[in-house]
Amino acid sequence: MHAADIVEEFPVITIDAESLDAVRMIAEQSLPGILVVDASGGPFAVLPASQVVRFIVPRYVQDDPVLAGVLSESVADHIAERLSGKMVGAMLPEHLVDVPPAEFDDTILEVAAKMARLRTPLIPVVKHGRLLGVITASRLLAAVLKS
Amino acid sequence: MHAADIVEEFPVITIDAESLDAVRMIAEQSLPGILVVDASGGPFAVLPASQVVRFIVPRYVQDDPVLAGVLSESVADHIAERLSGKMVGAMLPEHLVDVPPAEFDDTILEVAAKMARLRTPLIPVVKHGRLLGVITASRLLAAVLKS
Repeated sequence: MHAADIVEEFPVITIDAESLDAVRMIAEQSLPGILVVDASGGPFAVLPASQVVRFIVPRYVQDDPVLAGVLSESVADHIAERLSGKMVGAMLPEHLVDVPPAEFDDTILEVAAKMARLRTPLIPVVKHGRLLGVITASRLLAAVLKS
Repeated sequence: MHAADIVEEFPVITIDAESLDAVRMIAEQSLPGILVVDASGGPFAVLPASQVVRFIVPRYVQDDPVLAGVLSESVADHIAERLSGKMVGAMLPEHLVDVPPAEFDDTILEVAAKMARLRTPLIPVVKHGRLLGVITASRLLAAVLKS
């Protein structure tokens, strides 16, 4: 069994898309994260849902959690302010930028090893440099159990 | 809107369950992770799917990725060896043990602030110390967009 056998189609977003669009895609499709592609459609980064949550919580709330309760009535304003005019590229976690993709002919263990190093909820899969889709951590575990 | 309004039922596993059972639950239900409870049923830790992948890849493969390709034919054996006789507690990432839960009457921004600090794909929600369920990062984002 190889990466190409378990790869899935997956929503992608371009690095220069509006950050709010990434939030909407993750929210509406209950995704563990989203794959970010560059202008040529090649895989570039992984944006986990948990990272988006980190991004939308204003720094002053992260630094002083008591504020979160006080500010709650106007949460939409605070979030809108955080996202306004920002591109997807601004939300990316450093360790998941320029992620090395899995190759279509990687074995399941090779994909697992790459995913383990990246600490990512999903990894892109390419064939001759072209994006085939992604493999999520839960999908990989299902493949492992069947191997 | 408060935590109790968006909390979801979610599969849980006890800390002394077999690690293979956790892998099966995540794989079969395509979960971003799983909530680990203590003997009394209280929330104890979060086990992200990506952490399980890290756990099942033998250290010598993580250290030498080339090995992953060579060892591929017997991946099931390597995984079985990693999981054999291990309990769920042995798989937990340090930063997601003893997680402070969200309270049922936390605002959405309070939940977001707690989730942001923990860098977790999901957070347990309690009412008077009793587990109500969890809120995933994607669910939280959906609530934020509606707030």
